[in-house]
Amino acid sequence: MSLLSVGSVAFDKIETPFGKSDKILGGAGTYIGLAASKLGVKNAIVSVVGGDFPQEYLNLLQTSGSDISGIEIIPTGKTFFWEGKYHIDMNSRDTLVTELNVLEQFDPKISDEWKSPRIVMLGNLHPLVQASVLNQIEDTDLVVMDTMNFWMDSTWDELIKVIERVDVLTINDEEARQLSNEYSLVKAARKIMDMGPKYLVIKKGEHGALLFHENQVFFAPALPLEEVFDPTGAGDTFAGGFSAYLANSNEINFDTMKAAIIMGSALASFTVEKFGTERLIEVTNEEINDRLKQFEALTQYEMDLP
Amino acid sequence: MSLLSVGSVAFDKIETPFGKSDKILGGAGTYIGLAASKLGVKNAIVSVVGGDFPQEYLNLLQTSGSDISGIEIIPTGKTFFWEGKYHIDMNSRDTLVTELNVLEQFDPKISDEWKSPRIVMLGNLHPLVQASVLNQIEDTDLVVMDTMNFWMDSTWDELIKVIERVDVLTINDEEARQLSNEYSLVKAARKIMDMGPKYLVIKKGEHGALLFHENQVFFAPALPLEEVFDPTGAGDTFAGGFSAYLANSNEINFDTMKAAIIMGSALASFTVEKFGTERLIEVTNEEINDRLKQFEALTQYEMDLP
Repeated sequence: MSLLSVGSVAFDKIETPFGKSDKILGGAGTYIGLAASKLGVKNAIVSVVGGDFPQEYLNLLQTSGSDISGIEIIPTGKTFFWEGKYHIDMNSRDTLVTELNVLEQFDPKISDEWKSPRIVMLGNLHPLVQASVLNQIEDTDLVVMDTMNFWMDSTWDELIKVIERVDVLTINDEEARQLSNEYSLVKAARKIMDMGPKYLVIKKGEHGALLFHENQVFFAPALPLEEVFDPTGAGDTFAGGFSAYLANSNEINFDTMKAAIIMGSALASFTVEKFGTERLIEVTNEEINDRLKQFEALTQYEMDLP
Repeated sequence: MSLLSVGSVAFDKIETPFGKSDKILGGAGTYIGLAASKLGVKNAIVSVVGGDFPQEYLNLLQTSGSDISGIEIIPTGKTFFWEGKYHIDMNSRDTLVTELNVLEQFDPKISDEWKSPRIVMLGNLHPLVQASVLNQIEDTDLVVMDTMNFWMDSTWDELIKVIERVDVLTINDEEARQLSNEYSLVKAARKIMDMGPKYLVIKKGEHGALLFHENQVFFAPALPLEEVFDPTGAGDTFAGGFSAYLANSNEINFDTMKAAIIMGSALASFTVEKFGTERLIEVTNEEINDRLKQFEALTQYEMDLP
């Protein structure tokens, strides 16, 4: 019942209408690992950082519960850095700085111990890096892949080849439209599942997430919050909670994926309450359970059909 | 178990990315009445039309099941006319023509037979017209009110006075923000409920609808459709299905309102499939039941909490 995640471990600097952060801990691998650890799932993060990356952050990931032996440290390199600014609606943001740094030469190496994880979660990275991970996997029950429009613009052919090989693809609504060239998300989903993935998750931010599989569809709303303080990492936390829930499930099917989507949404609803990983790190099991109950109240109803 | 609705009965002319309509039957009162009739709820439409309004349309409303004795005909007047054009995302539209015509002098008269309906549904109209209806009501279990940004811009004081008197307010997300001066919908809902309504429904179009009551919140998604052909009337169909479901309920409380929201969403999901009222008119009980089952599959999940 283990989860291998591959993704950036990075520095983020964030400005929202509510404040500015310093250079803080970020990256897809970070959020996925923290989410998995919160759910008590045995997990490893495969990534790369520079010599400027604080030991304190590595300790944090490790003591939270992630195996960090797969995080390569390049002493002469600098860690991936992203700086961004959110607008009042929090659904749109401007990227101010992207410094790939050590991520540019990232050559992930999967240790023997981790070549047969129950679930592989490929965080948003160059498709050739994602492919390289898949090439090293010997056995797994499910491969989940995240990506973004940037790779559709710059490495289309490589991206399509990875998408062919995964079981679940998670992207946002605009990316689903770009990938399929269909405006209707229902039509987009059908086309994308024809490309390879058996399941498709379309993330709509504050408007929730859709899960498609064959002719079935499931919808999970985002929890209506008083304030969304900082959306950074919400999508990665969602992916981490989703994958980790499945790693712990006896069965992996449409029904357990529904519950996994709810778990991902619940964890993501914490992440947005403070800057970066701050809220996710401190969240307790009791708080997670309370939030799952809130999701139940938010979505479940009884209705007599005539 | 009766529903009194007051709203426009009108001509619409619509252009969408999929085609153009002629001058066709439209108006909030029309959609609310048709939705209620579909659910077998005794209902009356109070409205006004001009001498140019086809008898055929009146017959349609009547044979569908609405009491149309409250639709005043002004032989020398012209019927309210709206013309609009939708963009590719279908969430935004341009109003090309608005001719109020007979609606400008609308003075609704409620017959003695209809002064004590189980539910009153005030469609989007001038707040003084809505107030005039409430002044004529002798007894009712629930008043539901729809309105729009236009009245917030032009008749704020009158609008606030009607809002104070209703039990349920239905508006869209932008209108909720304008009415409350709060960006967060959770904060907006609290402020708006402080203005009078015990329940608030925030309609988010293709992103579903939220129901607020005291500290509770419920969310119903819109059904993901292959194509949204024409969104005109979706909000009014929703309001009609919602009110009519409650008119038929033994109890009116948060739980039955959840189901009412689902019924409103289900009926609205038909309306958007063709131009104007075309699809709603032809829909069968079996189709409605099938769609309610689709909503169940779309939203219901099972999850063991630890």
